[in-house]
Amino acid sequence: MSLSDLLSAAPTVVAAGVDVFSGALRAQGAEVHDVDWRPPGLGDPADLAALALDPRRAVANRTAVERLVAAGSQLVDVRPAREVLDLPDRTLLHSGPPLTWETASGPMRGALVGACLFEGWAGTVEEAERLLAAGEIALDPCHHHRTVGPMAGVTSPSMWMWCLADPVHGGQAFCNLNEGLGKVLRMGAYGDEVLTRLRWMRDVLGPVLAAAVRSMAEPLDVKAVLAQMLQMGDEGHNRNRAGSLMTLRELSPAVVAVDAPSSDIAAVLRFIGGNEHFFLNLGMPTAKLALDAVGSIPGSTVVTVMSRNGTEFGIRTAGTGDRWFTGPAQTPVGLFLGDFGPEDANPDIGDSAIMETYGVGGFCMAAAPAIVRFVGGSVPDALATTERMYQLTLTENPAMQVPILGFRGAPTGIDVLSVARTGWLPQINTGMAGRVAGTGQVGAGLVQPPRECFETALTALAEEARGAAAA
Amino acid sequence: MSLSDLLSAAPTVVAAGVDVFSGALRAQGAEVHDVDWRPPGLGDPADLAALALDPRRAVANRTAVERLVAAGSQLVDVRPAREVLDLPDRTLLHSGPPLTWETASGPMRGALVGACLFEGWAGTVEEAERLLAAGEIALDPCHHHRTVGPMAGVTSPSMWMWCLADPVHGGQAFCNLNEGLGKVLRMGAYGDEVLTRLRWMRDVLGPVLAAAVRSMAEPLDVKAVLAQMLQMGDEGHNRNRAGSLMTLRELSPAVVAVDAPSSDIAAVLRFIGGNEHFFLNLGMPTAKLALDAVGSIPGSTVVTVMSRNGTEFGIRTAGTGDRWFTGPAQTPVGLFLGDFGPEDANPDIGDSAIMETYGVGGFCMAAAPAIVRFVGGSVPDALATTERMYQLTLTENPAMQVPILGFRGAPTGIDVLSVARTGWLPQINTGMAGRVAGTGQVGAGLVQPPRECFETALTALAEEARGAAAA
Repeated sequence: MSLSDLLSAAPTVVAAGVDVFSGALRAQGAEVHDVDWRPPGLGDPADLAALALDPRRAVANRTAVERLVAAGSQLVDVRPAREVLDLPDRTLLHSGPPLTWETASGPMRGALVGACLFEGWAGTVEEAERLLAAGEIALDPCHHHRTVGPMAGVTSPSMWMWCLADPVHGGQAFCNLNEGLGKVLRMGAYGDEVLTRLRWMRDVLGPVLAAAVRSMAEPLDVKAVLAQMLQMGDEGHNRNRAGSLMTLRELSPAVVAVDAPSSDIAAVLRFIGGNEHFFLNLGMPTAKLALDAVGSIPGSTVVTVMSRNGTEFGIRTAGTGDRWFTGPAQTPVGLFLGDFGPEDANPDIGDSAIMETYGVGGFCMAAAPAIVRFVGGSVPDALATTERMYQLTLTENPAMQVPILGFRGAPTGIDVLSVARTGWLPQINTGMAGRVAGTGQVGAGLVQPPRECFETALTALAEEARGAAAA
Repeated sequence: MSLSDLLSAAPTVVAAGVDVFSGALRAQGAEVHDVDWRPPGLGDPADLAALALDPRRAVANRTAVERLVAAGSQLVDVRPAREVLDLPDRTLLHSGPPLTWETASGPMRGALVGACLFEGWAGTVEEAERLLAAGEIALDPCHHHRTVGPMAGVTSPSMWMWCLADPVHGGQAFCNLNEGLGKVLRMGAYGDEVLTRLRWMRDVLGPVLAAAVRSMAEPLDVKAVLAQMLQMGDEGHNRNRAGSLMTLRELSPAVVAVDAPSSDIAAVLRFIGGNEHFFLNLGMPTAKLALDAVGSIPGSTVVTVMSRNGTEFGIRTAGTGDRWFTGPAQTPVGLFLGDFGPEDANPDIGDSAIMETYGVGGFCMAAAPAIVRFVGGSVPDALATTERMYQLTLTENPAMQVPILGFRGAPTGIDVLSVARTGWLPQINTGMAGRVAGTGQVGAGLVQPPRECFETALTALAEEARGAAAA
């Protein structure tokens, strides 16, 4: 239509926004097309447009979610971190994006101090703090070493690690062993009971598990356990009850056959059986394997890491590779243990948001309605949360089915562009550490990433898309 | 209002049935009260009226459900049936109401034959059949001996039994050990693999479990396990996955400490871990304890037993005590294993409907949406079934909560009067045995009692109510 025809021909109107305008036009006989457009939820509209128009995006994202969904996870070994990670001396791994002693929160400092005591690098808390403050202990994110750690995620050379392998893509991922709830290193506690337990895990639990796992005729299919958990009221982040029981079932015949005192065998079975979160440290590297399989894919807007160090929340995307996009960690809202209250909670901490990045955890709360008794909220909230996460994700994982939703696959493959368009943020459920070093766990709750992570990631992805278009 | 006022005063109308009548009256300014009355679903209206007007009913039923809900269940011992039941020689227990060899179905005959071979009473199948046909082996229902047995429920003197106790009311209940799925005695199979397994259970599993259970500092709280199962996607009849895992967790440290060869210990752990229905034989006596605690209460219309022997379905009520009300067992509709089909299925069999009588199993399918993959139906059906069972029951069991229904208690205390009023029958989910002796399991599905059980129970309860009113 030429400009001169504009007022002589019958108008065809495209209307966005409130329907009072299109209704009035329609009443006058005009041809009106309603468009369900709304302003972007976050980010610069020009950046959204650049990504929306990036011709690489569809194929890149399809590749990303195909790899994500195809990845497998087998438990192949249990070995000390010293051997697995080949770390320089006096190095500690921690959760989340990079941080320094100065910026570390209370529970992160508590866990770092505890690890120095456990390794014998310091004899007192004060000495450990001095070493750490002086930079004599190197700090590095778990994620930089194919490793994930719940809460503080502090991993030291003498800790034993689950060694998982992806038989589809050939990757490996690692995680230390879960200590249980309450006063534990990963929650920032470092008292005698914590160190005594860590020594028992080093001297008894680790060697027994290593011997048992190495003796198994078939490696444990951890992905299959995670899939089964969703049929049994777990969501794989803060409910791991069925998963921990299945792990016990799978390991116990091999544990019983280990050449060790029967009191040690019984203690190992009792330790696993007494820890409803024992599976978490197997679930996390399973998710890590799948997201590492996605890796770096130019043009993809899929999130490959969400992680928190207690100070900052960081994400990575397939299109931007190893770069971190960070913002201030939020404080979870939820339920508290004993006399603890909201003022005792540290901001969000831990690599465990890898479960949501994989599409389970908070994304699958519909599969685990009983979790609302642990993290707060109501059963309808749990159902609505999973429904909402389908709007942020690119696919449904056929292996991870949610029975109550008619066996629909878990919402998988968080898309930065969808987050920006909707303004909805990924829903994470999480443990809460006490903000004061040494406290331990104070509760569990619900939390979201800060918007900044997605805003800066969006900008970076858009810049990269413009660069690719210009090239 | 006197008869002479009837046409001079403004009419007040009570309307039942279709609302076209009350609507027309209301349009003319009349005062109309709608009553949601419908014809009874089953039974003689005079019998319903007699029960509805029985002044004892409210208190009797309140007493019944209070006892039902209050009952506890602890695992206190594992002993051979010979010691526990003090049976006359050459007696076999079976599921359901009383039956004879002549009236026994294929799987019941198969299980009876297998038990004769297992006990060494016969050397061949033919010899066993001759003994049974000649009446040389006495047959008696499990329910007459504080015992329950899944499927054929055949219990012989050399089988080990779970011994459970109700710490609240002091009752005891018993059940043999679960053999697993497929070709098993309770499904009517009696081949070498069945007898070999039963001998291993007699010589290894039973003694190890007995020693383990007796060594435990605290008896296993089986009611608490059942409650936890409903939070983990089990409904306690055809899904016992989480329950079996929790049982393994609770028993394994004690099992490991038993003075037996480590190969036997590992085999016991592997047997329990490999049988997702292992818990069923603990759940059933837990329900039996609660329903035996109800016992006999004149004026109560609560169902205390629903059970099937493969030929007949029988129920008992609190108001009629030990009397059985029977009708022909229906054939379940569901899903089949391998190449089996509907023509291979025997009519409904087993004492396991004690789970529905207690308010779980089919009554709690909303807690276990994944079960539809085993028994058939859809997830919305599972939710609707539990909702419907609230219409047949008198209370909600606060210990047995269904998370997806906002933690509402299980529909508990089946009321014969409510069944008659609504015409809805209790929903049971169940395993299906092959109709030919020796076949084993062919599938699992959904089934209801025959209406006759409730019609005859209603009549008997009404007669008793009239008798009490006349006395």
